Amino acid sequence: MADDTVRGVASIDPRTGATVEVVAQETTTAEVDRLCTAALAAAPALEERGRAGRAALLRALADALEGRRDDVVAVADRETALGATRLNGELTRTRFQLRLFAEVLEEGGYLEAALDPAGDTPMGPRPDLRRMLVPIGPVAVFGASNFPLAFSVPGGDTASALAAGCPVVVKAHGSHPATSQLVFEVLEQAARKAGAPEGTLGLVHGVQGGADLMAHPAIRAVGFTGSVGGGRALLQIIESRPDPIPFFGELSSLNPVVVTPQAAAERAADIATGLVGSFTLGAGQFCTKPGLAFVPSGADGDALVDAMATAVGRLPAQVLLNEGIAAAYARISGELARQRAVRPVARGADPAGAGFEAVPLLLTTDAADLPDAVTEECFGPVAVVARYDGEAGLSAALERMPSSLTATVLRGDGETALPLAVSQQLRGRAGRLVYDAYPTGVAVSWAQHHGGPWPSTNSQHTSVGTTAVRRFLRPVAWQNAPQEVLPEELTDGFTGIPRRVDGVLRPAGA
Amino acid sequence: MADDTVRGVASIDPRTGATVEVVAQETTTAEVDRLCTAALAAAPALEERGRAGRAALLRALADALEGRRDDVVAVADRETALGATRLNGELTRTRFQLRLFAEVLEEGGYLEAALDPAGDTPMGPRPDLRRMLVPIGPVAVFGASNFPLAFSVPGGDTASALAAGCPVVVKAHGSHPATSQLVFEVLEQAARKAGAPEGTLGLVHGVQGGADLMAHPAIRAVGFTGSVGGGRALLQIIESRPDPIPFFGELSSLNPVVVTPQAAAERAADIATGLVGSFTLGAGQFCTKPGLAFVPSGADGDALVDAMATAVGRLPAQVLLNEGIAAAYARISGELARQRAVRPVARGADPAGAGFEAVPLLLTTDAADLPDAVTEECFGPVAVVARYDGEAGLSAALERMPSSLTATVLRGDGETALPLAVSQQLRGRAGRLVYDAYPTGVAVSWAQHHGGPWPSTNSQHTSVGTTAVRRFLRPVAWQNAPQEVLPEELTDGFTGIPRRVDGVLRPAGA
Repeated sequence: MADDTVRGVASIDPRTGATVEVVAQETTTAEVDRLCTAALAAAPALEERGRAGRAALLRALADALEGRRDDVVAVADRETALGATRLNGELTRTRFQLRLFAEVLEEGGYLEAALDPAGDTPMGPRPDLRRMLVPIGPVAVFGASNFPLAFSVPGGDTASALAAGCPVVVKAHGSHPATSQLVFEVLEQAARKAGAPEGTLGLVHGVQGGADLMAHPAIRAVGFTGSVGGGRALLQIIESRPDPIPFFGELSSLNPVVVTPQAAAERAADIATGLVGSFTLGAGQFCTKPGLAFVPSGADGDALVDAMATAVGRLPAQVLLNEGIAAAYARISGELARQRAVRPVARGADPAGAGFEAVPLLLTTDAADLPDAVTEECFGPVAVVARYDGEAGLSAALERMPSSLTATVLRGDGETALPLAVSQQLRGRAGRLVYDAYPTGVAVSWAQHHGGPWPSTNSQHTSVGTTAVRRFLRPVAWQNAPQEVLPEELTDGFTGIPRRVDGVLRPAGA
Repeated sequence: MADDTVRGVASIDPRTGATVEVVAQETTTAEVDRLCTAALAAAPALEERGRAGRAALLRALADALEGRRDDVVAVADRETALGATRLNGELTRTRFQLRLFAEVLEEGGYLEAALDPAGDTPMGPRPDLRRMLVPIGPVAVFGASNFPLAFSVPGGDTASALAAGCPVVVKAHGSHPATSQLVFEVLEQAARKAGAPEGTLGLVHGVQGGADLMAHPAIRAVGFTGSVGGGRALLQIIESRPDPIPFFGELSSLNPVVVTPQAAAERAADIATGLVGSFTLGAGQFCTKPGLAFVPSGADGDALVDAMATAVGRLPAQVLLNEGIAAAYARISGELARQRAVRPVARGADPAGAGFEAVPLLLTTDAADLPDAVTEECFGPVAVVARYDGEAGLSAALERMPSSLTATVLRGDGETALPLAVSQQLRGRAGRLVYDAYPTGVAVSWAQHHGGPWPSTNSQHTSVGTTAVRRFLRPVAWQNAPQEVLPEELTDGFTGIPRRVDGVLRPAGA
């Protein structure tokens, strides 16, 4: 930083707009260097703890977080206005996530261990080859504004990176620095108590600190949750490194929903309740918020839209996470409402207080004449309903969809033909296909995928679920290696994990 | 292309430098668009052929290549001067590779199929979730200069992309356009005969065609084998796309070799023969060429270097692949030899003909005073021997190593301590650790890995071996999906492939 003034990091109450406290100082370039250097130094010891040692560490972090539940939820609610119920759920999810990665470690299949014995093949003699995944090295994690726990300091990126065996330096999101600082201190103390090497966890505050982190030579991969603009800026820093590193960004998602004519006929009222609940959950600040719903024209669709309008009209103003999001919401939702062919059909109550409040908004348009603006994400409690005529009209409109984290089909009882056609059309543009449910719940599990083609992410990896760990690993092959230099999991006779031997997958114990 | 002059693509004989024929015209922007659009249109039908259908297609391609072996080897030898023995071996390897990917398809584990049944979890109710990998879409493959078959039109990128279910458009390398054109025609005819959809394969000639290919919206991923400069240029095109896509580039590799004092004492002559054979194989034009060897100081190391010098002194001049590589070799090897502290110890015979010939060269330097230039790849028949004093001297020098595809340890009989220390130090800088062998052979198998941290590749994926297929796949999750919309491999009761069910890995048939 050319300007070496040290700046305070303020914690702001979004319900009032007032600064409550100065949490920390912005992290200096020298301090970022110290944290990254410590992370690099910690990497071998963290790996040497092995799968069992890191599983114990993850469980210790989960327990420590649970032990400070009330304090963490209180400060997170004060900084985000997300409410205690949601934040308690988020803490439970975060604890569960840490513990699930401990199971992933113990199971060991994530290592993709493979052994090819030496021998003759149709292409000639083959040496003894053994392959598995190893930690990629220190990881930079950029916390998200909208999940102060599950996608921030103790979130999925941190849990999966530590599981992989990678030290983590987190860039705290400016929306919740006090929560970040508190949780970091809880985790760091627990890690130290559990015997993790110094440097296993680090925390950075401030924009310049984040840029310094991205550029630091010790950092080997990046997990990011945020905007396309923020992601592009970080990619530019990566491209100017002498050694570009893998970037896992979750950037933006429209999350289209299709209501079939049969579904609209059978359960318009239920769907209206579900959709409004989903797009206003957490004040519409979910990356999986359904931003655009396709509803058939005609009486059934009219009934559905009327029911949505009634529900939206009864909603109070909602407090957004920070001033920037509130200003962007006012601007973008206003632009949306002014689009040619877009009609506002309902709005919630006007703001009552001085905080970062937003008015819930329901808009409609014609699927046959979709303005470009409605195909872009707008963070906050707004959704657009596009009315379509027949399958051909729907299909033509779906061709305009950008890639998203999710695509949802709400279908009639037993209906399969149209859901299949929609699935086939949208599979190339989504990471998760949801049926008869709403996209805003993202379970943490073995079969989950939270990703998708650009701009949702860059296609190939997930930030939720057990396979998130793959982002922070890289393969290594050992050729003709003596047993003494091999990782335990690749040695002769080891049966503690699934391994592929000469092409044949063998479960653990076999 | 602003300049719409159509240019011919010349096939040049590197043994004479003469243009033998004009093979084709450079592909126009309009033609690239036609090929990419056809690839996009072919994608669903190629996927619908299923695993068995694509396995049959890969075997048909392998058979067709074998059927034209003599013609292919003849034209490839004329264009590359690699010799019939090597090129016959490369064709065998390429055929084997296509057939191995057919086995990968039949085995099905590559799909990473996972099913989580609905139920209650500690974080709350979980919906039914099912995940597997699907084709990413049309792939652009940039052929390599140095492997006209195994890393070009019919090579590993093409085989793994087709296996994944992705149509492929290949950018032919300018060094062997006639080979590329012939092999493309053989493959395309075989694909058509096997019932593959039109657009499954495409071929592009010329630099502008390659740039147009990278920028085309239908292309969803890129496989590239070439220089750091070329890779950086392609990355810039990707970053300027509205939708950046995954780039899998194999860019540059030094491939350090460590000879332990015990190995030098036990078998200096053998190692000298092996090392010289490895760094001059294919005229030193392997991405796995050992460019820098660490040899102990003292009498055993002296004997090893003397034996290497004798072997190099007996070598004839070697024909390089093209004029650009020959010019770069002359320049870079000349600069290397002029480095402070670098001493030329042997050179092969001077060129006799008018072709793109190069003089084999052996240089030595001190490990304690390694010039930067010797830590960079120099394509062609040159290697540097760095003499080291003791383990501390070796370790300090290894800290200077860039990341490589391989790192090799030549050890004494039963020796483990120093090999382990070197492995631990170099594992973070290499994709494959080789013991008591030379890095230039790369077997195609289940446990192979050909990649590494930048600049060798970008860390996480391989271009050789069965897991190369992962580059051209992306995950999708289905939530609460009716059986009718699921891929067969995720339906209830399917046991044809390994699947992870509620976290437990089940082999096929279970």
